[in-house]
Amino acid sequence: MPNTYLKLMDRVKDIGRLGAVEQLLDWDQETYMPKHGIQARAEQMSVLAGLVHERLVADETRALLDDAQAAPDDFVALTNLRETRRALDRAANVPTDLVREIARSASLAKDAWAIARTRSAFNEFAPHLAKLVDLKKQVADHIGYETEPYDALLDEFEPGAKSADIATLFDQLRVATVDLLKRIEGASAKPDPSILTRDYPTEQQAFLSRKMAAAFGFDFDRGRTDVSVHPFCTTIGGSGDVRITTRFSEQLLSSSLFGTMHEVGHALYEQGLRSEHAFTPMGDAVSLGIHESQSRMWENMIGRSKAFWSFHFDALKKRFPGALADVSLDAFYGAINAVKPSLIRIEADELTYNLHIIVRFEIERALISSAISVDDVPAAWNGKMTSSIGVTPPDDRDGCLQDIHWSMGALGYFPTYTLGNLYAAQFFDQAKIDLPDLFDRLARNDQRSLLDWLRTNIHAHGRRFRAGELVERVTGKPLTIEPFVNYVTEKFSDIYNL
Amino acid sequence: MPNTYLKLMDRVKDIGRLGAVEQLLDWDQETYMPKHGIQARAEQMSVLAGLVHERLVADETRALLDDAQAAPDDFVALTNLRETRRALDRAANVPTDLVREIARSASLAKDAWAIARTRSAFNEFAPHLAKLVDLKKQVADHIGYETEPYDALLDEFEPGAKSADIATLFDQLRVATVDLLKRIEGASAKPDPSILTRDYPTEQQAFLSRKMAAAFGFDFDRGRTDVSVHPFCTTIGGSGDVRITTRFSEQLLSSSLFGTMHEVGHALYEQGLRSEHAFTPMGDAVSLGIHESQSRMWENMIGRSKAFWSFHFDALKKRFPGALADVSLDAFYGAINAVKPSLIRIEADELTYNLHIIVRFEIERALISSAISVDDVPAAWNGKMTSSIGVTPPDDRDGCLQDIHWSMGALGYFPTYTLGNLYAAQFFDQAKIDLPDLFDRLARNDQRSLLDWLRTNIHAHGRRFRAGELVERVTGKPLTIEPFVNYVTEKFSDIYNL
Repeated sequence: MPNTYLKLMDRVKDIGRLGAVEQLLDWDQETYMPKHGIQARAEQMSVLAGLVHERLVADETRALLDDAQAAPDDFVALTNLRETRRALDRAANVPTDLVREIARSASLAKDAWAIARTRSAFNEFAPHLAKLVDLKKQVADHIGYETEPYDALLDEFEPGAKSADIATLFDQLRVATVDLLKRIEGASAKPDPSILTRDYPTEQQAFLSRKMAAAFGFDFDRGRTDVSVHPFCTTIGGSGDVRITTRFSEQLLSSSLFGTMHEVGHALYEQGLRSEHAFTPMGDAVSLGIHESQSRMWENMIGRSKAFWSFHFDALKKRFPGALADVSLDAFYGAINAVKPSLIRIEADELTYNLHIIVRFEIERALISSAISVDDVPAAWNGKMTSSIGVTPPDDRDGCLQDIHWSMGALGYFPTYTLGNLYAAQFFDQAKIDLPDLFDRLARNDQRSLLDWLRTNIHAHGRRFRAGELVERVTGKPLTIEPFVNYVTEKFSDIYNL
Repeated sequence: MPNTYLKLMDRVKDIGRLGAVEQLLDWDQETYMPKHGIQARAEQMSVLAGLVHERLVADETRALLDDAQAAPDDFVALTNLRETRRALDRAANVPTDLVREIARSASLAKDAWAIARTRSAFNEFAPHLAKLVDLKKQVADHIGYETEPYDALLDEFEPGAKSADIATLFDQLRVATVDLLKRIEGASAKPDPSILTRDYPTEQQAFLSRKMAAAFGFDFDRGRTDVSVHPFCTTIGGSGDVRITTRFSEQLLSSSLFGTMHEVGHALYEQGLRSEHAFTPMGDAVSLGIHESQSRMWENMIGRSKAFWSFHFDALKKRFPGALADVSLDAFYGAINAVKPSLIRIEADELTYNLHIIVRFEIERALISSAISVDDVPAAWNGKMTSSIGVTPPDDRDGCLQDIHWSMGALGYFPTYTLGNLYAAQFFDQAKIDLPDLFDRLARNDQRSLLDWLRTNIHAHGRRFRAGELVERVTGKPLTIEPFVNYVTEKFSDIYNL
């Protein structure tokens, strides 16, 4: 192995390690940091982000990269070089001061968001969002774009994706969704989701949460679970230290249950990345869309499947005898899959979920193109929720303040959620072909077979393939909405007797 | 304010912030990090320590420092310049690779120490210690010293201190201690410490721990408490984020109770540093000895005083009705002050405590001068414990593996504990002069008066004065053993009817 390449990788690993330190600072801010730690934390995020950026764009990195060579069949080195070049090219024209300012502002904004959310006061959060939108527009201008600045931001989360293509895909999906939704609304069968809003003691939910994580294959020696306002998964130390958070609501089982399953899905991907490639692109996830395909597959295709619950439901009843004594497996299965237009994205059913994403995608795209301003957000949000989902948020807390993402400066992130749903369905179709008895396995509490399949087909590759390439490689076809539409049509036809 | 000075301070603050990030990594490793996070953590500690060092010793720092000017009456700027120069001069000749290697090795060694301690197997820890001793010797050689290499290490924790002076002070203290110890052993009064080893439910101890922290003035909005193998206090985000840990033993009230009081003493100092000076020397503690004067004063002079417990004992009895029903305030006061040669430093009484320190000081000084090797440590430890304290550790767990310090590479740290006891007694004498009704105040649950006195006389100054200068300024006298010897003589004469 040429020495230049190894030197470059040492540098890349150090940059990756510092990036993971940023993740720890962030995790700590969301979980344990005391109230008055925020000012110093924002400055720490700033100095670290600046260092990471400086190290990446340094002349030395570029020189090593230009000199480094890989054998034509050495896909590890080829991947690492390609992705390092991509990262460097993206970062090269962005000033360090701007990077530092975004990190500082995002840290303060997250704190302000959490407080504003409690008070349901968008106006308290608005100056922070306005600042972040402005800073991210500057980033887009520095990075450059062909058609619209939003593309430059989207590309950070979903390399190579274009907002125009996503808009087309989303339009198709909206039509199919609304069509199915109408049929469901006219159906005679009505699963009753209210059984999920009975009395579920938090302590028992926490126990269940850990049990489900373990059942899916989460390794507690390589991760941990904590509580935060907004659930997330973060990687602190390669595949050896992957942490998730969840939140508990005494009156709502599904929030912690499916929230945990979702974050565990992310964590399984991170724990499944090859440790020998830690802190290099080969040890990184492909994209947020592919990441989300893992979380949504575990949350929905497994966690909301009858097969999985046919094994686990009896234990669940025993854990919550008060709430579930009179509930059958079928009724529970119906409840966790009930389609019902609602306010909160992360608690939405599988069908209306994507409509929530489209609302956010349209708003943030308009923000970045300056078609609307930050002050327009609550009205735009409420208007779109009403017209596309048919519910109107009574306040900002359950409206445009519900998600943490914008406070993190993560504009361009939301569409990857729906991409994830589409990827998940397409991958899952292939998994069912490769594991014909998959549902029998789930019914025997064997989730390992699916996990092994994901590890082999997706996790092990790190960033070797771009998202589109990976999908074609695994499923033999480019990404389309059909697998997802077929999946929801079949599932809800069964539940709603369509 | 000249621009160069401000530029230098920006740089110093960034370095300080990165140093605090190291503290967070460390805190996380000791509290929440999953088992397999250790390899990546060690590398992260290494890259951060390297960055901090590089930024400090960079030509740019030196150039700014050489150009920076302060008005003769601007003590803030004068202090910051003096201390920055000191830090830079100390670091200048130490190679970054050595700094990185120490950080990596210490992180791995702490992990290995915790495991070796559980198994009481010094041999498992020995290679780590040998490596750290070797690395620290290299550091001493790079920094330079007049008489012995240990001085170069000691100077990191107690600026300007010399081991020969400390040895002289410790010899005097040993004589006085052994003399008083003999009188106590011959006394007819015998307080019964066994009442502290009854059944104390952990949950109730945790409640008590928080209550005592609050009673001393710990601000939970500016800090938090957690659990770790070895209790510590660390500052993550200036005075706004100061964290302590404690440990609980179901059968030993004093461990968590006085452990908490001790760490709270440290935390009150950190929370009392001026936030406007955060991450500059003016916002730093003077030395570890002065730091320890705060923790030991709160733990012993307050936490083991009859005045404090005359207010709190009734509530304590109610919290532990099983263990304390038959115990009077006098019996409790005797128990928490019982003098009894024992194995564990942090659970030792105030008198024999310093003998534990002298054992460690002599061993680590001998290690650094190569008079003994790491393999000699258990025998040296057990021999010294037997000859100077009269107890022989049955195993390494309660012997030379009991303390975390060496695994952190903190050689030269231990003597600051006894310096702290001496400083504490001398400061406390002055506090009693300035607050003549101090004990009446404590008996009314007013700890605030003492805290305010400490804030004004010690905390507010940051690093403006060196330890010796501060002591003279506050007490009008240089440091001697007399105040401490008088304090213990008076206290134990009363308890033991001497």
